[in-house]
Amino acid sequence: MQHKPEILETRLVARSRLFGIEEMKIRFSNGAERTYERLRTPPIAAVMMVPLLDDDTVVLIREYGAGLEEYQLTLPKGALDDGEDWREAADRELREEAGYGARRLTMLKRMTLSPGYMGHQIRAVLAEDLFPATLPGDEPEPLEVLTWKLSDLDALIEREDMTEARVIAALYMARDIVRRRANSKETME
Amino acid sequence: MQHKPEILETRLVARSRLFGIEEMKIRFSNGAERTYERLRTPPIAAVMMVPLLDDDTVVLIREYGAGLEEYQLTLPKGALDDGEDWREAADRELREEAGYGARRLTMLKRMTLSPGYMGHQIRAVLAEDLFPATLPGDEPEPLEVLTWKLSDLDALIEREDMTEARVIAALYMARDIVRRRANSKETME
Repeated sequence: MQHKPEILETRLVARSRLFGIEEMKIRFSNGAERTYERLRTPPIAAVMMVPLLDDDTVVLIREYGAGLEEYQLTLPKGALDDGEDWREAADRELREEAGYGARRLTMLKRMTLSPGYMGHQIRAVLAEDLFPATLPGDEPEPLEVLTWKLSDLDALIEREDMTEARVIAALYMARDIVRRRANSKETME
Repeated sequence: MQHKPEILETRLVARSRLFGIEEMKIRFSNGAERTYERLRTPPIAAVMMVPLLDDDTVVLIREYGAGLEEYQLTLPKGALDDGEDWREAADRELREEAGYGARRLTMLKRMTLSPGYMGHQIRAVLAEDLFPATLPGDEPEPLEVLTWKLSDLDALIEREDMTEARVIAALYMARDIVRRRANSKETME
């Protein structure tokens, strides 16, 4: 197992209103040196919710992705506001984007996007015991809210408008949890 | 279902050696206008392989992620070279990073990272009928190659050094395919 490389220097080489690009000089434990570029890591964490109406019904949203220039099926998500913990942010974003509050929030997994050049992280959260509740968000247009059956996850993942890796990963995790619950219930009965 | 927004203007507002940041003016079909920022989309596609030694054994690599400043377990991946198709790139990257060639490559899914501000896409590919084969890569240090059992995927995903959403998504997809094969084999017998 390798020793961690030494970061010799990090400097901001480009920036915009939202993004920063850093250049890093790195020395690996074998002496090899490399200059890498990475996005500046945002100081705030983010949450993404898998909202379940029941053990087989997940709530999805349909949202325009400006990076892809397409509408995509995705899960409600967003960054933590100042002073919020992940539970507060999860409940707020769920109300803003999907029109539900959640009485039960379970952390599934802290995920990364592309650790080679991004430090961005997002926490996937299972949201259950939902109830209708809305909060005004900052969306330019109302988000379309729809539902899908976890038992039909394969068909969802085959869709051309379902591509986001963190969404796909979180849906599989939720399906596994629901299946494990069903199995342990059967065993107990 | 909404009509696609109109992109009024796109301009490069910052750039470095590798990255570009674009500002986009967008008008949604309801008339709302927004200014977004996104990363410039790389012109080349990428592939990520799930290499299976047998129906239950996946090959992983351990690699330093400069964005995260941590070593992480991940899958072999990389960008297509000029003129390569995804099969050629998949076989080459697998040799460079994991030390295997693959006689059988199956496209699993085209995935995106964060469609809101990135157009980046990667194709997940199942790599089977492996044989030892190496090619020199551009890694600063030799990559550690290890194996894991797909039947023990839960334990892998609980690890703190297994966080990459596209890797997790691809591993679940591979596990599902292997399970479906086993089930259809049982049915036939």
